[in-house]
Amino acid sequence: MSLLTVGTVAFDSIETPRGCAERIVGGAATYISLAASYFARPIRLVSVIGDDFPEKTLEFMQQRGVELEGLQRREGEKSFFWAGRYHDNMNARDTLDTQLNVLADFQPHLPKGWENPDYVMLGNLTPQVQMQVIQQIENRPKLVAMDTMNFWMDTAWDDLMQVLRKIDILIINDEEARQMSEEYSLVRAAERIREMGPRYLIIKKGEHGALLFYEDQIFFAPALPLYEVFDPTGAGDTFAGGFMGYMAQTDEISFDNMKRAIIYGSAMASFCVEKFGIERLTELDADTIEKRVEAFASLVNFSTNGKGALKD
Amino acid sequence: MSLLTVGTVAFDSIETPRGCAERIVGGAATYISLAASYFARPIRLVSVIGDDFPEKTLEFMQQRGVELEGLQRREGEKSFFWAGRYHDNMNARDTLDTQLNVLADFQPHLPKGWENPDYVMLGNLTPQVQMQVIQQIENRPKLVAMDTMNFWMDTAWDDLMQVLRKIDILIINDEEARQMSEEYSLVRAAERIREMGPRYLIIKKGEHGALLFYEDQIFFAPALPLYEVFDPTGAGDTFAGGFMGYMAQTDEISFDNMKRAIIYGSAMASFCVEKFGIERLTELDADTIEKRVEAFASLVNFSTNGKGALKD
Repeated sequence: MSLLTVGTVAFDSIETPRGCAERIVGGAATYISLAASYFARPIRLVSVIGDDFPEKTLEFMQQRGVELEGLQRREGEKSFFWAGRYHDNMNARDTLDTQLNVLADFQPHLPKGWENPDYVMLGNLTPQVQMQVIQQIENRPKLVAMDTMNFWMDTAWDDLMQVLRKIDILIINDEEARQMSEEYSLVRAAERIREMGPRYLIIKKGEHGALLFYEDQIFFAPALPLYEVFDPTGAGDTFAGGFMGYMAQTDEISFDNMKRAIIYGSAMASFCVEKFGIERLTELDADTIEKRVEAFASLVNFSTNGKGALKD
Repeated sequence: MSLLTVGTVAFDSIETPRGCAERIVGGAATYISLAASYFARPIRLVSVIGDDFPEKTLEFMQQRGVELEGLQRREGEKSFFWAGRYHDNMNARDTLDTQLNVLADFQPHLPKGWENPDYVMLGNLTPQVQMQVIQQIENRPKLVAMDTMNFWMDTAWDDLMQVLRKIDILIINDEEARQMSEEYSLVRAAERIREMGPRYLIIKKGEHGALLFYEDQIFFAPALPLYEVFDPTGAGDTFAGGFMGYMAQTDEISFDNMKRAIIYGSAMASFCVEKFGIERLTELDADTIEKRVEAFASLVNFSTNGKGALKD
């Protein structure tokens, strides 16, 4: 099945307690499409770059089945740039610089033949751009997922609410879920947010795993306890890409299948943080991914043996 | 199998975003023994109280199989008292008052016939008191677990290290594990701490679950996402009590059995936070506990279906 994604394709400068990386390739759609490319074909990417983006990265993405006809290239302009520094605990970060560049007036255009995607992942961008993508889609896709962030809740709430009513699954982190719902309990937050539109909700908790909410059911996927986290940048997008890639491959919209998809998304995210930027996502293979999924299974699996609380 | 526990039996005044409770029954050993009493008999409690402690709580504990011959009662003195206020997120709290009272010069004494416990849970107390209990035990128990806190790391490090070499399993929270090991990664922290003595380590992460470390294996038990947390006080002790109660009942020292014990401990902790103080622990039964354990299983269980990453 085809997966259409929209999001940034960009440069990041990153400082973590483990090291620094200057102007390396990043961007939500880059992580999403690379992660998804391990599961589904074709991956169709809608974004915009300047003339400064490395051709060899684009070639690599194409080799991995990522179609780039929806990627606008602007001569004489620069790609989106973000710089940030992670705190010691890697769970918080400060933005040091944001240069919108080509993103400032980005208008997404779906190329001819892309109007009927099976699966859609709307990466974190202004809700207006996300809506423009939805409006260019002719028939309702099987599953539309989106990411967003606190900034759009502060500055574009009404637009955000309109997009929320058009999608099936929202994928956000715990802090965003709390701000969006004004509820601290994630169970309450999930209720409120699902009333805003999406039938499914995934709340990512970083190193503490992820929760999937649907009707009155909850599924929890742990994060793998890691010896070392080098760079959390892109982990959330990689999770979303792995999740939607798995959904697109298996093409079964059910709670049980989403559980598997979340485990695959979590596995992909666990690779992402092992090296800076997209590097780890360029060198994986099916066996490595399956072994990681097995590690997730053994992390949480337990058997009961008929013994439990006393009956008296 | 018998479970011996030492720890505080006390009063707490608690403020949480959901309400307040003044001078209610609390204390590590109270929570531990009540939680364990749903699984094993006898539970033998070593502690000290003043003449202000309610007789009816003691009677209730005895009805639940908690033996109190090791509980010293000091006429004319007051029980240990703690007052604290939880932050909005319930994950952090400020201590408003601590009155040691009878605890100031507490010397634990094991009653005749208690010298050979099968299982031992050393609740959070000064390492010296924990060691005094260990020294009164004649034959090595099947499993000795202990809790501790940052305060003892700051003020009694050498004593703490001596106790650590005498126990099998340390049960602490993530913040304590990081301070004890001077490592941020919990995987690295677990390595360091296990070098200090305990073969097994449980790191509790509050609303984010708990990790069990043994040799090169890791097991993760989630916390149940809850609609409402009324009062986190005692959740960690209740976890330890449920864990050790289950171990004492099943009497099988293995990684697989500890996984089950952690799920039972997590289930007991999930009840504890639903009401103030020990209240919820006074009204449970085997069916209610088993249903909660099933909820934990369905929260994390997923099936694979042979589909995964693309082989190309």
